[in-house]
Amino acid sequence: STPIRATLFPGDGIGPEIADSVKQIFQAADVPIEWEEHYVGTEIDPRTQSFLTWESLESVRRNGVGLKGPMATPIGKGHRSLNLTLRKELNLYANVRPCYSLPGYKTRYDNVNLITIRENTEGEYSGLEHQVVRGVVESLKIITRQASLRVAEYAFHYAKAHGRERVSAIHKANIMQKTDGLFLKCCREVAEKYPEITYEEVVIDNCCMMLVKNPALFDVLVMPNLYGDIISDLCAGLVGGLGLTPSCNIGEGGIALAEAVHGSAPDIAGKNLANPTALLLSGVAMLRHLNLHDKAELIQKAILNTIAEGKHRTADLGGSSKTTEFTQAI
Amino acid sequence: STPIRATLFPGDGIGPEIADSVKQIFQAADVPIEWEEHYVGTEIDPRTQSFLTWESLESVRRNGVGLKGPMATPIGKGHRSLNLTLRKELNLYANVRPCYSLPGYKTRYDNVNLITIRENTEGEYSGLEHQVVRGVVESLKIITRQASLRVAEYAFHYAKAHGRERVSAIHKANIMQKTDGLFLKCCREVAEKYPEITYEEVVIDNCCMMLVKNPALFDVLVMPNLYGDIISDLCAGLVGGLGLTPSCNIGEGGIALAEAVHGSAPDIAGKNLANPTALLLSGVAMLRHLNLHDKAELIQKAILNTIAEGKHRTADLGGSSKTTEFTQAI
Ligand SMILES: CC(C)[C@H](C(=O)O)[C@@H](O)C(=O)O
Ligand SMILES: CC(C)[C@H](C(=O)O)[C@@H](O)C(=O)O
Repeated sequence: STPIRATLFPGDGIGPEIADSVKQIFQAADVPIEWEEHYVGTEIDPRTQSFLTWESLESVRRNGVGLKGPMATPIGKGHRSLNLTLRKELNLYANVRPCYSLPGYKTRYDNVNLITIRENTEGEYSGLEHQVVRGVVESLKIITRQASLRVAEYAFHYAKAHGRERVSAIHKANIMQKTDGLFLKCCREVAEKYPEITYEEVVIDNCCMMLVKNPALFDVLVMPNLYGDIISDLCAGLVGGLGLTPSCNIGEGGIALAEAVHGSAPDIAGKNLANPTALLLSGVAMLRHLNLHDKAELIQKAILNTIAEGKHRTADLGGSSKTTEFTQAI
Repeated sequence: STPIRATLFPGDGIGPEIADSVKQIFQAADVPIEWEEHYVGTEIDPRTQSFLTWESLESVRRNGVGLKGPMATPIGKGHRSLNLTLRKELNLYANVRPCYSLPGYKTRYDNVNLITIRENTEGEYSGLEHQVVRGVVESLKIITRQASLRVAEYAFHYAKAHGRERVSAIHKANIMQKTDGLFLKCCREVAEKYPEITYEEVVIDNCCMMLVKNPALFDVLVMPNLYGDIISDLCAGLVGGLGLTPSCNIGEGGIALAEAVHGSAPDIAGKNLANPTALLLSGVAMLRHLNLHDKAELIQKAILNTIAEGKHRTADLGGSSKTTEFTQAI
């Protein structure tokens, strides 16, 4: 059968090494995927206003699926962050981050098993900022009914499809009554259509306190952009950090761009020391999106077993294995 | 010697019971304070637009110090949250929340010992919101040089006075370049004047991940309003929750209003079940503000020893003591 074409952005720093790991493991598992690799450019592309080329974006649009390593946004003015360019151009409206305790890898928390779903296009990320007078600046947070309904729909759909029981909308509507209020209103409307799923609303400060006290209180969490940024990192921290957690962005028209959310770790780049787990598990998320559930299951089991077994762990997990040894073991 | 007059807002719900506990313990310790008690009204005072009366505010202004229990903001439109009214009217620009592991009270974290200092007057709490068209709403976040410098000054002054070594400014200036950028600029300016204190900047999402992985990485944290709201609750969660952590608001002209940040817990109100620890430790913070360090030390030790000993704990800490028994033990 014809292989499925998927875009691969290895990214910067440790990106190419961990992308190699994904390619090898997918090949070993006979995954019917043909990668279309695209590199982050070194010149600003005027059509994207960033180091991400138009051709790279076209590739994801054409293929409908992609996997992305870390991209360091070079310091400087006059161009957009690569991550934001991707979200804007591909209309990646929902960022889905599952977060679960890895068997055999001990943190302070056991049995974490939750999903954060973040609105990914608006809110505090509008980019609209203004200096009123010297010493007084303002930023605009924008919440729309369209984007809020869309991400709420996605969250409830996801919860139902994955047999989850509860959706918590995270907000600060006691202070931002109109913006977060609109977000909640949209969540409530969607919740009505899913009577089998418990719906609740939790203020973000309280949510953070509950998460560190007892993360088992939560199941699926849906929230505006900045809260999602904050809470998804907090949740990753509960199970060991961004090096271990997958992420997948869902766009209009069913596009899925999975990504490792951690940094490009320039200090260890090229040294065969990086942990490819986050990118691997993101690759698994991509496979599930493509309904390649058997392959996804096979690879995920191999990753989790290798970590659980403990013989081949990379340095960040307290082991001494090289990236290639860990990959080989999987 | 003449006693010092201090305002006391017992507050709602469990407020009067935990305020009684403070009064008894302060009396037992011969603290030279005379309380001026004020209750939250049942009618909206037109001068404050809230259930908080003008007389209550005047009392804090006159005395310069106060202690506040939980105040439930009644649902409804056309009046301001009581907490926000206090912050605005008294210009309480810095909210200081120490957060440390209580000896003998086990959580997932040992040796937490950090201070969050929150800008308390502007940012996302401007109250400026607007519906552009149906389905599109916006909120304004406002950052000023004046308020940012003021809270940064307070944070560095606090760090130095308390022998702390590091101040971390928490921000999201990679996204909100102008607003959070101005906040950071002000922190940097102040940092220059304190070469003996290490200054660093940490992005809020990363900060939350680090806090749950290893809170010992932090010492004093200073940040804009909403981030402070979120992170101070997260930190409280690390050591057991808002029932155990003190808070003190610092205003223009040296006003100090200490407060328990937890809710009014109407479900257990009047049942002699509430834990007065947060209000007691806030009272201790007030004593330190008044330079009554001996009394502060004496009372703080008694509280911590009673909790550590474990014989007299309230229900929230897994014990079976009544509020009055716990108070008696202290
Ligand atoms: C790098 C940064 C712009 C980005 C964000 O804030 O969204 C990152 O933190 C993330 O979560 O993907
Ligand atoms: C009750 C609420 C308005 C308040 C806030 O958001 O500041 C509370 O969470 C706090 O931290 O004091």
